[in-house]
Amino acid sequence: MIGEIVCVGTELLLGQITNTDARFVAERLAELGIDAYFQQVVGDNRERLAAALRLALGRSDLVVTCGGLGPTEDDLTKETVGEVLGVPLVHDPAVADRITCLLERHGSQVLSRAVAKQALVLEGARILPNAAGTAPGLLVSKGGKHVALLPGPPAELEPMVRDHLGPALRELAAAEGRAASFLHTRVVKLCGLGEPAVEEAVRDLIHSANPSVAPLVTVGETHLRVTAKAPSQAEARALVEGMVAAVEERLRPHIFGYDSETIAEACGKRLRARGVTLALAESLTGGLVGHLLTEVPGSSEYFERGFVVYSNQAKTQLLGVGQELLSRYGAVSEEVALAMARGARQSAGTSLGLALTGIAGPDGGSEAKPVGLVYIAISGEAPLGPTEACWRHVFSGERGLIKQRAAHRSLVRLWEWLA
Amino acid sequence: MIGEIVCVGTELLLGQITNTDARFVAERLAELGIDAYFQQVVGDNRERLAAALRLALGRSDLVVTCGGLGPTEDDLTKETVGEVLGVPLVHDPAVADRITCLLERHGSQVLSRAVAKQALVLEGARILPNAAGTAPGLLVSKGGKHVALLPGPPAELEPMVRDHLGPALRELAAAEGRAASFLHTRVVKLCGLGEPAVEEAVRDLIHSANPSVAPLVTVGETHLRVTAKAPSQAEARALVEGMVAAVEERLRPHIFGYDSETIAEACGKRLRARGVTLALAESLTGGLVGHLLTEVPGSSEYFERGFVVYSNQAKTQLLGVGQELLSRYGAVSEEVALAMARGARQSAGTSLGLALTGIAGPDGGSEAKPVGLVYIAISGEAPLGPTEACWRHVFSGERGLIKQRAAHRSLVRLWEWLA
Repeated sequence: MIGEIVCVGTELLLGQITNTDARFVAERLAELGIDAYFQQVVGDNRERLAAALRLALGRSDLVVTCGGLGPTEDDLTKETVGEVLGVPLVHDPAVADRITCLLERHGSQVLSRAVAKQALVLEGARILPNAAGTAPGLLVSKGGKHVALLPGPPAELEPMVRDHLGPALRELAAAEGRAASFLHTRVVKLCGLGEPAVEEAVRDLIHSANPSVAPLVTVGETHLRVTAKAPSQAEARALVEGMVAAVEERLRPHIFGYDSETIAEACGKRLRARGVTLALAESLTGGLVGHLLTEVPGSSEYFERGFVVYSNQAKTQLLGVGQELLSRYGAVSEEVALAMARGARQSAGTSLGLALTGIAGPDGGSEAKPVGLVYIAISGEAPLGPTEACWRHVFSGERGLIKQRAAHRSLVRLWEWLA
Repeated sequence: MIGEIVCVGTELLLGQITNTDARFVAERLAELGIDAYFQQVVGDNRERLAAALRLALGRSDLVVTCGGLGPTEDDLTKETVGEVLGVPLVHDPAVADRITCLLERHGSQVLSRAVAKQALVLEGARILPNAAGTAPGLLVSKGGKHVALLPGPPAELEPMVRDHLGPALRELAAAEGRAASFLHTRVVKLCGLGEPAVEEAVRDLIHSANPSVAPLVTVGETHLRVTAKAPSQAEARALVEGMVAAVEERLRPHIFGYDSETIAEACGKRLRARGVTLALAESLTGGLVGHLLTEVPGSSEYFERGFVVYSNQAKTQLLGVGQELLSRYGAVSEEVALAMARGARQSAGTSLGLALTGIAGPDGGSEAKPVGLVYIAISGEAPLGPTEACWRHVFSGERGLIKQRAAHRSLVRLWEWLA
């Protein structure tokens, strides 16, 4: 089966937003063994959208549109797909009910014209529920061609593809008796080792064709993407697993997770496995570490509380950091970071305290203590008394990036500490 | 002039990378006043690339290709553009010299075949120097059509467009006696009003062609992007400012900022202007609100501290939320949200306390208190005693999105409170 993505939105043509939808959908189609030869982007213009759809339907079996399902006059995708396929739009009362209910629940104004437009569906189409917004997706088939219509916002499109379009396309393949070819991918995620060192360790594997191994760098992490293609899911999976095992053999101590796993999840696993509870004391990160930890479902089992001690007064009152310590060493110092970690642990009654203090900038830096200077400290109870550590880092980048790097590194330190 | 971007690379079709090149080039073309109606993505395949180029040249005056200029056999863009335009490839000794010199300086192996391939240029083409890699870009013209060939890696493409392609396209416009046109854009950012209501208020303005007004929705915000095109930057700016003033007249109370301003910055401005200090008490958001507030430089002036009270014990110990209140109403209730806001304000000695409690899911929901239920409370000192408010919301989406929506909405509430 040949698939083609058509993204709809003048904002894409003007470069106002990055086309993350195309990547997300393309990756899912590849996983489903659907080949893709072209992608198109077209603006909110009925004639040009119709031309793009005709071109796509002439050369592909499945066309996936992204965007243009909203309530405004700019949103033309349903109308234009209907026109090109010769399928009428009909009112779906169940969809209308759901939209009205959602809007009411959110306390939003219910504009009957907007609801009526979003409740129009292509006759005979399968409805793809929208878990995060009002406009449902649609999957419509005619004359051996299939068109999937998806909403543009990634928060709506991504769960819809994962939970509804993917399974529907698998069913379609089975119903049409097509032998699919399967792509399987696994991402091995590493931390505490730079990309050159990772690449050095697996240089010979990177030259493999199937499975292929591709390195990718993100903030504080190196990922190895292992991909294989085979006539069955099981064979593709076996190829990938063999390669992953080879990577693991060489780099195991640095692998914190796979695929969509985050370093916060890896920390959560180790905290839970060791029955350890955690309290945070954050200064420069302002709550970002707590936010990352609590992205993980069930984090309340091990994350007890966090102190966002932005002022010196807060450091003293809440964590018992001595005023003398603050004036002698300054708020950004090893001594204060350790006192913060200790204070958080003791005040919360947890087994571990993790603290960060630093200078996020753009102001507040000096020669001795430049912008980007961060101390990360851990304080824990060992069997024979408290055990502590502190690390000094200087991160580069702008304020937001320094906060991100500091938060990420603190989780890497925590994960390593719990090894 | 009509421009079209053609991105070349199988990795884009497989969804292995995000197409940031398309966005970057599109934004620059828009700034140069070059209209765009379509974008295409095609794999490393000569026949299909030729088809995409023919389609683009048939409907556009300028085609910008991204990718496929490298030294490997997969890199086919120059060869295919030459074939489609009927322009031969010729060896450029200066380009060959520069590539050899660069490789030697980096200590890379010099493969003569790779150098020879990259030193082939389209006859008569203008060479666009590559500040960050080996393959130069090219700009070639024939029969009134122009094709710009750019390398795929963003680190090479972006400076090349900024420093060489942009100026070359301005010269081209001048040489062809086209009045160069300038694009100016301003984004008006609104909150507290849904997209349909915003659109209702400016429906007549949305039909304007120059300046154009386009709505765009993000989590909790509606943006109106006002864009004008004119023969000079000053005229374009004046057109935009006129339209922005018309939007302001109708929607002023809901406008929190412009362009890259965030709701956290808007809160910061009002907090600073009113000399108000803030303490946070976060439960489900785990520190996200503090993180957002401290993304703003100088936020330590008004943000004193935050309490991430994930456990009930933390709510009681740190904020003085009564155990009776917790057991009677539950941690996710109006009563507890208000007690948290009050406790944060009193403990920190700030003028305001902002609190959030809710159920982020996926577990922990019930019929009476579903996943996504969030209470946001503000407690403040008024001249005649404390003044408080609490709002109930039910947000949809997955855990991460519920946290984001709750955090964002709490900042909107804070911003409105400070009006």
